[in-house]
Amino acid sequence: MGKVILYDTTLRDGTQGEGISFSAEDKVKIALKLDKMGFHYVEGGWPGSNPKDMEFFRMIREYNLEHAKITAFGCTCKPQTSPAEDPNIQSILEAGVQVATIFGKTWDFHVTHALKTTLEENLKMIRDTVKYLKSRGLEVIYDAEHFFDGYKSNADYAMKTIKAAEEAGADTICLCDTNGGSMPHEISEIVRRVVDAVQVPIGIHAHNDCELAVANSIVAVQAGAVQVQGTINGFGERCGNANLCSVIPNLVFKLKIDCMDRDKLQALTELSRYVSELANVHPDNSQPYVGSSAFAHKGGVHVSALLKNPETYEHIEPGLVGNSRRVLVSELSGMSNIIYKAEELDLDLDMNRTNPETKKILEQIKYLENKGFQFEGAEGSFELLMRKAFNGYHEPFELLALRIITEKREAGVIYSEAIIKLKVGEEIVHTAAEGNGPVNAMDNALRKALEVFYPFIRDMKLADYKVRVLDGNAGTRAQVRVLIETHDKELGSWGTVGVSENIIEASWQALVDSLAYGLLKKKKETEK
Amino acid sequence: MGKVILYDTTLRDGTQGEGISFSAEDKVKIALKLDKMGFHYVEGGWPGSNPKDMEFFRMIREYNLEHAKITAFGCTCKPQTSPAEDPNIQSILEAGVQVATIFGKTWDFHVTHALKTTLEENLKMIRDTVKYLKSRGLEVIYDAEHFFDGYKSNADYAMKTIKAAEEAGADTICLCDTNGGSMPHEISEIVRRVVDAVQVPIGIHAHNDCELAVANSIVAVQAGAVQVQGTINGFGERCGNANLCSVIPNLVFKLKIDCMDRDKLQALTELSRYVSELANVHPDNSQPYVGSSAFAHKGGVHVSALLKNPETYEHIEPGLVGNSRRVLVSELSGMSNIIYKAEELDLDLDMNRTNPETKKILEQIKYLENKGFQFEGAEGSFELLMRKAFNGYHEPFELLALRIITEKREAGVIYSEAIIKLKVGEEIVHTAAEGNGPVNAMDNALRKALEVFYPFIRDMKLADYKVRVLDGNAGTRAQVRVLIETHDKELGSWGTVGVSENIIEASWQALVDSLAYGLLKKKKETEK
Repeated sequence: MGKVILYDTTLRDGTQGEGISFSAEDKVKIALKLDKMGFHYVEGGWPGSNPKDMEFFRMIREYNLEHAKITAFGCTCKPQTSPAEDPNIQSILEAGVQVATIFGKTWDFHVTHALKTTLEENLKMIRDTVKYLKSRGLEVIYDAEHFFDGYKSNADYAMKTIKAAEEAGADTICLCDTNGGSMPHEISEIVRRVVDAVQVPIGIHAHNDCELAVANSIVAVQAGAVQVQGTINGFGERCGNANLCSVIPNLVFKLKIDCMDRDKLQALTELSRYVSELANVHPDNSQPYVGSSAFAHKGGVHVSALLKNPETYEHIEPGLVGNSRRVLVSELSGMSNIIYKAEELDLDLDMNRTNPETKKILEQIKYLENKGFQFEGAEGSFELLMRKAFNGYHEPFELLALRIITEKREAGVIYSEAIIKLKVGEEIVHTAAEGNGPVNAMDNALRKALEVFYPFIRDMKLADYKVRVLDGNAGTRAQVRVLIETHDKELGSWGTVGVSENIIEASWQALVDSLAYGLLKKKKETEK
Repeated sequence: MGKVILYDTTLRDGTQGEGISFSAEDKVKIALKLDKMGFHYVEGGWPGSNPKDMEFFRMIREYNLEHAKITAFGCTCKPQTSPAEDPNIQSILEAGVQVATIFGKTWDFHVTHALKTTLEENLKMIRDTVKYLKSRGLEVIYDAEHFFDGYKSNADYAMKTIKAAEEAGADTICLCDTNGGSMPHEISEIVRRVVDAVQVPIGIHAHNDCELAVANSIVAVQAGAVQVQGTINGFGERCGNANLCSVIPNLVFKLKIDCMDRDKLQALTELSRYVSELANVHPDNSQPYVGSSAFAHKGGVHVSALLKNPETYEHIEPGLVGNSRRVLVSELSGMSNIIYKAEELDLDLDMNRTNPETKKILEQIKYLENKGFQFEGAEGSFELLMRKAFNGYHEPFELLALRIITEKREAGVIYSEAIIKLKVGEEIVHTAAEGNGPVNAMDNALRKALEVFYPFIRDMKLADYKVRVLDGNAGTRAQVRVLIETHDKELGSWGTVGVSENIIEASWQALVDSLAYGLLKKKKETEK
């Protein structure tokens, strides 16, 4: 069957979701991931409404993208204004993109009540804006806001608005179910009529207010739409946008419609979790295709049958989207996991199912995971754990004492200081450092103490520091998980983890692992 | 248009969801709520597989239900067994219900590979089981497991299985998309064929593995199904079942199909949150219709249009499902959001666009949000900010000094202690407390100091504590944002926020706002 163009608006419409916000750096990271996955368009933001978005456009220009075109969002010019004088349109040009996505009004009621102008003037605004941007050499995607509601209210006028965009040279016209209130049979019928009436390629932009955004995107494609706009994890205002993490595998595996290479689709689960992580939103376990429960099976009699004939209990093979089957309460699958990991890490260990050491480490990992540890993204801590269990590995130093003091006085200035005493080999080092918070003070003190022995740890920078509260309803007594990513120019990057009710303790564990693993890597490097 | 029968399986299929479990008492409470709302069937459990379920059936018999029939779930008898000897069937009789829901195999492959019997024997098992239960005076709903996959594999045999149920006297036949892998066009077409071929009323039981369970239920109804099976909030195995909290309003408001009285529908939001509460699952804010974000507006353009006419950006009036409109304050928001908020908070302020004070507060909010503040979910801090800007509000206490010490010794035990000195009115209070982390110690010390003056703050519990690192690549020097949710039985819930490079300082700000806002609410309550 045909081909569908993927248009991601996580960075713009996605950030309209409650509690979703990304820094300009986060946006760049996500855009690069989307590009690598083969998304065709990445909407970066609305430069005219949000100064932070301009920073993103400035930063992303530094990169050569492989697949994705970056688009800037904006609205048609204001009534009785020329696009050349409209600051919103000018900021799109300033964004330095090759593609502009312009939304305009479809619904007669909105034109007269929200825009407070005439129906004729609105058509002129659409025409003038599209024409102007085309004349400046941009590709133009025209988003017809409230298209379906507008069509239901006044089909004739709704068609006139997109005809105006078509005549002015729009390259794609995207029909938006802005309020998310349309039913699949309405979407299907209206898209079909539009596809018959215009020459320009048609897109669909669905919202999830009736829990139908994915269905509406699918039926629109079946009715002839060739572009789907949506967001990763369905992030977006109110109930969100069409969730591309469900739309894409539905198109590829169910409808056999080409939109993403199958090998790239295997990174879908990782993409979903990465975007959740950057949004600091807990991933939805029951999310279709990519959720951790999406292929979770209860134990018992089913398990062995499942492993022999999974296709009868699973609608697709989980590996196709980079997810994995989870057999709840199954030591067998856990054991294979550990053995697989050990092989992956190239650990020269006697690991097989009958080895009692293998069982022991499996139990320890289960215990730690129950406590809230997470070894995905913390390979450093995981490898140290394996080495401690099998290899007689010992930490390169011993903590004798640590005290951290934070003080705040009426002036409002806050002050943190850490005092540390370590044993490194046979030597004792006792030192202190300040920091702009208790964790930073501890980090500084630990590094100061160790640099005497291992001067190269100066090159190991903390590249990322993340805190997740595991059981928020326990208030300030809650368990926290700290994930640290460390980067060294020569040794690359590695992740480590710590969990405790005390954020200092959790950070301490992750920090110690960070440096210990770095020393281990350095040693291996030197021995090569 | 026609009428649809609602069949709830939250208490059975819902509890297959990872992390979902209810006590027998919880189940009774939910069944009573569903009855009151006008649900037609409530599936109570599988007495043959779960002894805990029998307790529910015993307890629910004590009540006179107004609308709902309670059903017990089970499978057809085993191969070469008579239903009279099958303990699974007998336990349905022991449950003392008037309705049995029996599932049987549709898919030829499953019959031969999972049941390990002949296709003919499977038809006999279906016939015998339905006949037996009918002869014992029960109403029988036959759930055709894997119906759509079975139909796609061997349509002829699939039809034979439901014909067997029909001939044996089944009162309803429900077609199940057990693996959740079917597309709407397949569901629609297959349901239509079945409706044409059998006389018995047809139901639909959809799973959400493709994020299409609601759509599949809707299109099945449009194709002639007259019963919808689903769960509250879509709870269920893997990605869940069809979410009745979306299906019902879609049927009533969008398709004008009668299934629940409109006045009862106004309790839908409360029902959804009640079931989440009993399941101890955090409600999904972005859930269609009933989520707290479902009618929350963030974009400035949207808000200014909404103020003119709510229809512009809402697909239904939120009150129809017992939900309410919320306007969020964020960097995306304009002046309109601030004005709306001030009115909502009933602040007696001169707020209009031309007032320079309004501009000033908007700028201050933008400044704070640039620094990393986020006022969504922090209405408490936001209102305090507004009151400080306009109303000469002063905090109920003054910090004189705060010191927090965290110590760790070789034994590995970590210890945190906070010493605090406050001025409350003209009095000075100087005290100290321990905690299992520095923030918890500070929380304890602050409360200890304030309780002397405001004993009722003991009832204000921290319901949620979230930490977000804003710029992880700054390592342990990163800015952090702390969001706290506080709950008081009498005063309800409120959120507060703090931002700093020092997690202690950020937590301090959010904590102080939490208690200050609680005191303000208490004062307003007392003055009523």
